[in-house]
Amino acid sequence: MEYDTIAAISTPMGEGAIAIVRLSGEQAVTIADSIYKGKQSLCDVTTHTIHYGKLMDPATDEAVEEVMMSVMRAPRTFTREDVVEINCHGGLVSVNRVLQLVLREGARLAEPGEFTKRAFLNGRIDLSQAEAVMDLIRAKTDRAMNVALNQMEGRLSKLVSSLRQTLLETIAHVEVNIDYPEYDAEEMTHQLLQEKLHEVKNEVATLLTTAQQGKILREGLSTAIIGRPNVGKSSLMNALVQENKAIVTDVAGTTRDVIEEYVNVRGVPLRLVDTAGIRETEDIVERIGVEKSRKVLKEADLILLVLNNNERLTQEDENLLAAVKGLNAIIIINKTDLESHIDRDRLQQLSDNHPIITVSLLQEEGVDRLEEGIAKLFFAGGMEAQDMTYVSNSRHIALLQQASGSIEEALHGIEASLPIDMIQIDITRAWEILGEIVGDTVSESLIDQLFSQFCLGK
Amino acid sequence: MEYDTIAAISTPMGEGAIAIVRLSGEQAVTIADSIYKGKQSLCDVTTHTIHYGKLMDPATDEAVEEVMMSVMRAPRTFTREDVVEINCHGGLVSVNRVLQLVLREGARLAEPGEFTKRAFLNGRIDLSQAEAVMDLIRAKTDRAMNVALNQMEGRLSKLVSSLRQTLLETIAHVEVNIDYPEYDAEEMTHQLLQEKLHEVKNEVATLLTTAQQGKILREGLSTAIIGRPNVGKSSLMNALVQENKAIVTDVAGTTRDVIEEYVNVRGVPLRLVDTAGIRETEDIVERIGVEKSRKVLKEADLILLVLNNNERLTQEDENLLAAVKGLNAIIIINKTDLESHIDRDRLQQLSDNHPIITVSLLQEEGVDRLEEGIAKLFFAGGMEAQDMTYVSNSRHIALLQQASGSIEEALHGIEASLPIDMIQIDITRAWEILGEIVGDTVSESLIDQLFSQFCLGK
Repeated sequence: MEYDTIAAISTPMGEGAIAIVRLSGEQAVTIADSIYKGKQSLCDVTTHTIHYGKLMDPATDEAVEEVMMSVMRAPRTFTREDVVEINCHGGLVSVNRVLQLVLREGARLAEPGEFTKRAFLNGRIDLSQAEAVMDLIRAKTDRAMNVALNQMEGRLSKLVSSLRQTLLETIAHVEVNIDYPEYDAEEMTHQLLQEKLHEVKNEVATLLTTAQQGKILREGLSTAIIGRPNVGKSSLMNALVQENKAIVTDVAGTTRDVIEEYVNVRGVPLRLVDTAGIRETEDIVERIGVEKSRKVLKEADLILLVLNNNERLTQEDENLLAAVKGLNAIIIINKTDLESHIDRDRLQQLSDNHPIITVSLLQEEGVDRLEEGIAKLFFAGGMEAQDMTYVSNSRHIALLQQASGSIEEALHGIEASLPIDMIQIDITRAWEILGEIVGDTVSESLIDQLFSQFCLGK
Repeated sequence: MEYDTIAAISTPMGEGAIAIVRLSGEQAVTIADSIYKGKQSLCDVTTHTIHYGKLMDPATDEAVEEVMMSVMRAPRTFTREDVVEINCHGGLVSVNRVLQLVLREGARLAEPGEFTKRAFLNGRIDLSQAEAVMDLIRAKTDRAMNVALNQMEGRLSKLVSSLRQTLLETIAHVEVNIDYPEYDAEEMTHQLLQEKLHEVKNEVATLLTTAQQGKILREGLSTAIIGRPNVGKSSLMNALVQENKAIVTDVAGTTRDVIEEYVNVRGVPLRLVDTAGIRETEDIVERIGVEKSRKVLKEADLILLVLNNNERLTQEDENLLAAVKGLNAIIIINKTDLESHIDRDRLQQLSDNHPIITVSLLQEEGVDRLEEGIAKLFFAGGMEAQDMTYVSNSRHIALLQQASGSIEEALHGIEASLPIDMIQIDITRAWEILGEIVGDTVSESLIDQLFSQFCLGK
């Protein structure tokens, strides 16, 4: 397939040593060459070579900048098209000028994700791999990155493809059965059908069990720290931030970047509610009552409820304990450096089996145990990111759930002894839905929408 | 010269399609190869070629990521050393992991500016060219970039070198004169000495006249908009921001980026005082009096004083006019869409010959003229950035001024008929001072200090 030639700045915006303007398409080399002056024409060079030279403005025939040109001919490129990467001095004005030049010479400004989209359209990667590319860029911890890498290497694709293969064989058998009842094929009895479908359903279910963990790794746990005044909420926040490298990410694509802060706790990214938020939750229960506050707290993925070891439980503490009942919470008894006055038996009763962890934030004692507790709460049994295929993408999760539903329908149909071609419809639907994960059976508008969430230049 | 092998992330931090970890030094290729798995060893490849492969963690022998390796052997590289650029997927975690790997394999984390410093130490560029590299990255408008580019191409270096050559010849002649009075060299009479020195002094003076403009291009004009309430200060600010692309830059090297906003007016970057600042200046004159407010206003490079066409001049207006006397100011009469009640004669008297420009911000009329006025005020006679060598760097300006001073001393010495070897001391000093611009005669600590202001990875 042939498309027009696109260009974009592929490095993050900001001051840096190096910036790259990337070109992809049939005219990539010609356009790059028209603004390049070096030892030889870029049209004559060997593929995958680097060339130093000057960038010329053809309008004025003036040297604009020093550049390094990386020329990569199809098909061994990211997009499977001819690609030129113009490696220039970092800096906003400088890289913008280079981009303006290539656009003037005939390239079109790429849409967000358009390079990856071409890799998909040209068959180098499937849809789930393309989505993994974006997750990789946005990954906030090593573990999240491993999940994305596994997906990018095609592990999810292979799993999904094998499930689809099983369904396809099932459908084929059913068809043989319908079309040629006299044919000597292995007869697809209802029982055999049931077996095959259960097999697929279980595999889909296994994938879905990884979904919560995968999603957490991808998006981070929104974490609220609550407790009465002066129990040590801010100290806890500081301890978590200090012991773990805070990850600052800026959301690409906006001029005024929104800065989010994450803390990496044993590979789990925690999105800490800011101090202002903490102050607000301070009297949240008193202010809006237990029931309503539960609703607010429910929005957090994790609640850290801090109590004071040095004092007896107050009514406020008990209200907070009631508010976190049934939610993902860890109870932290702080100030173990002081004499213990807290009523542990009463606390045990009210704790709803939430883990209870004792710490002394003043003496920097126990934060380790807390981190272990957090990791355990969400990754019971440990994580083996290297070996497992995690489903982390909301779109994939929704599709797997739909596929599971269709298979269930088919199984119900079998139990109800519905005609075999009715059952076949549900199986085909499951096959189609799984196909959407890898991009075999998706509409063009969905593809456009998916890639538009990418960052520019990828 | 040989140095150890350094590594750094050379693209801006943030989410982007591509990130680059750059290695430079004798071990660059070996280190890169130790974590690379591709078709062939990087040690065997031709220089200036690009290689696709996997990044391996030697500790676990696991594939970490997909990469493109650009291998460039000395001396045709940025640092004149062996350079490898590891081109990986953008994203903070991803690029950090790559950096960690090369550091573990024996590279040292580069200091800010260390790559450029090596280019300097290895003789590829001189000091003023190295400084231009940084200016290029920080350039906020095209014109500022052109100034940096000219300097990077060595125009300032050449000029300074030729001045030094003249001084050196002068010194040589003087020495011949002192050491071998009987020798048949052209006798360096006082008059000839004077001529040569005047020549150099004038050239230095010409360079210094470009300094203010160069500095403005580099650093932007800090601009204050003042006036009574409701004359249209915010509208003016909005008009300037809307008509001209606002340039957002984030200062590299900090985790919490400080964001500055510039407006590009005909190539001149204006650093607009924020709205809060404007509100403060609103009653600045009433609050602190004309004399004191002048001191505050003096800190601005440019003052835009807004008056209301629809009203007679008030005492406040007159106070403001008094406060900007002798400063760089433009008087703007806004609301020309309304009936004119302003007393133009009185205004003319009070205006101190500041340019007066009429606008209707409501009808978007006149902003063009204002922009022209701003450009004229600072670049009277127009700018020919392509042809001129601008001195923009404070260090260079200071050195040129010192050199000028030494030459003046020498000239005074000649007038006072001091012994020729006394005069020679001043000439030699001027020669040394000019040498500091290109880095011929600078101390190691100065070099360290200069490069430490660079951004990481450059």
